[in-house]
Amino acid sequence: MDLNQIYAPVSADLIKVDAAIRAVSEVNFPWLAEMLSHSLAVGGKRIRPALTLLSGQFYHYQFEYLMHMATAIELMHTATLIHDDAIDKSDMRRGRYTIYKLWGVDPAILLGDYLFAKAGVESSETRNVRTIRLFSQTLMTISRGELNQAINSFNIHQNRDDYIQRIFGKTASLFFLSTESGAVLSEAPEEKIQTLKDYGHDLGLAFQIVDDILDFIGTEKELGKPAGSDLAQGTLTLPAFLLNERYPQDNPVKRLFEDRKATENIKLAIEQVRNSSIVKECYNVAREYCDNAIRNIKTMPDTSSRQALIDLADFVVQRNR
Amino acid sequence: MDLNQIYAPVSADLIKVDAAIRAVSEVNFPWLAEMLSHSLAVGGKRIRPALTLLSGQFYHYQFEYLMHMATAIELMHTATLIHDDAIDKSDMRRGRYTIYKLWGVDPAILLGDYLFAKAGVESSETRNVRTIRLFSQTLMTISRGELNQAINSFNIHQNRDDYIQRIFGKTASLFFLSTESGAVLSEAPEEKIQTLKDYGHDLGLAFQIVDDILDFIGTEKELGKPAGSDLAQGTLTLPAFLLNERYPQDNPVKRLFEDRKATENIKLAIEQVRNSSIVKECYNVAREYCDNAIRNIKTMPDTSSRQALIDLADFVVQRNR
Repeated sequence: MDLNQIYAPVSADLIKVDAAIRAVSEVNFPWLAEMLSHSLAVGGKRIRPALTLLSGQFYHYQFEYLMHMATAIELMHTATLIHDDAIDKSDMRRGRYTIYKLWGVDPAILLGDYLFAKAGVESSETRNVRTIRLFSQTLMTISRGELNQAINSFNIHQNRDDYIQRIFGKTASLFFLSTESGAVLSEAPEEKIQTLKDYGHDLGLAFQIVDDILDFIGTEKELGKPAGSDLAQGTLTLPAFLLNERYPQDNPVKRLFEDRKATENIKLAIEQVRNSSIVKECYNVAREYCDNAIRNIKTMPDTSSRQALIDLADFVVQRNR
Repeated sequence: MDLNQIYAPVSADLIKVDAAIRAVSEVNFPWLAEMLSHSLAVGGKRIRPALTLLSGQFYHYQFEYLMHMATAIELMHTATLIHDDAIDKSDMRRGRYTIYKLWGVDPAILLGDYLFAKAGVESSETRNVRTIRLFSQTLMTISRGELNQAINSFNIHQNRDDYIQRIFGKTASLFFLSTESGAVLSEAPEEKIQTLKDYGHDLGLAFQIVDDILDFIGTEKELGKPAGSDLAQGTLTLPAFLLNERYPQDNPVKRLFEDRKATENIKLAIEQVRNSSIVKECYNVAREYCDNAIRNIKTMPDTSSRQALIDLADFVVQRNR
């Protein structure tokens, strides 16, 4: 099943969200328009806007407000990527040059700030103080998580909880903002808001674990950037963590983290992970989160949106990009 | 008259705002707490929070909401300074090392993002969608203005309108957010909201023009950073603009902008401006904006807050730091 099939219950409205996101680049400053257009033109999977719309379909579906929230979330996501790329000095993202690569650090900082602000304006258009507050709280969680990651880069002494906490801040927080805000804006009962939030939480963790696996097993073409990018940044993801746990005395991850210049260890770590059961083990962890997400979502009313969210959880662990 | 005297009508509540701002650094992550505490401990003039409280005193003074907005505005201001310092590679601010200098670009980006988010949460605590939206719109204006400044750095071909537009985005926008949101939260009539907004606009322009003058005539001790910082960044401020306008064939600003390495030209430009009528001319421009601000504010009800805002406009052009 591909994403277009999964998104079917909201596909017409997702096109409108996509148009709203692209319209953000229509500004009267040519240089700003160019940077915005470069950042927003290639949409990625639009998984977060889809989550907002699907989560908003169980009760009182109010597209007018959901659209603003979905746009806000995607813009915030884009802004964090622009800042991340500047911090990581990444040249490529989704197969294209990054803002950092094309314009440099300073415009990347300011363009990210502009998009955070625009996202804030969009979230205020929901006219719902609860979702507006959730929106800003999520940005706090994300930036705190990114700071944590920056401070712990090339730190080999992290346990599994540190990793889960890190991907909670980095990815899960935005996933459950998407589902929770969709639920709030559709006036779902509190208990169902919590169910959709929990679903988003588990789906987000699974999504990031798979992302971290793909950074080891994907091709540069599939990833849109070189494999091993996380290791190159000194980010200890689950596969790297398991490799280090399995061979605590000596392994290429440990050698790399001890001497950042020994980049030949990135290739060695990738090979060693690929030729071990670590990939399977990581997929099992992701699968467990997805199973949990599905178990949760099955307590929601039986609608086409519910089926879409179940299929999405399956997609998340099966995807290769 | 010093600022403490001017702030008298709101001084007790300003202390509470100050405490709320400092409380932002009380977080459970030691490294984050340390960076926040460094950023928020030295308060500066707290002119923006004072504007919000004073503007909120003409009608229905609701400190509970004004406090959140004042805190939000000061946090947004701090966040923009942290990003600015990273972009400008500034080592000093208010006589102390910057976050950029102490921790580097990456933590500066993420700490700024965290404070933008925290500011957003604070603004949502006003529970007033109009002020929440104004808040995010202002951040859009500021970051667009900063982008404009970054793109036009070392560009000598700017006219006076470009300069005014730049300081509108950079400074006036946050000043009139302070006064406008104070007015909105006190349920002022629309016409009076506009009056307070106009006052904030003119005061903000005057404030920035004086800041730009002080960068030429202040001592390093008064400024808390070396004089001539704007020129070093390639930022064409009013004194530099007038010098270039007066000697279009050749002058140290032009030479500096043509050959960025010629740092002796900064010293020459400072000397030439100090020994000319340019300083007086710039003060006249600032004075005009302040007179306009005062004329405007005098149409408000005659209260101690009105007098404070009048005195503040006088202070803004008389200050030496």
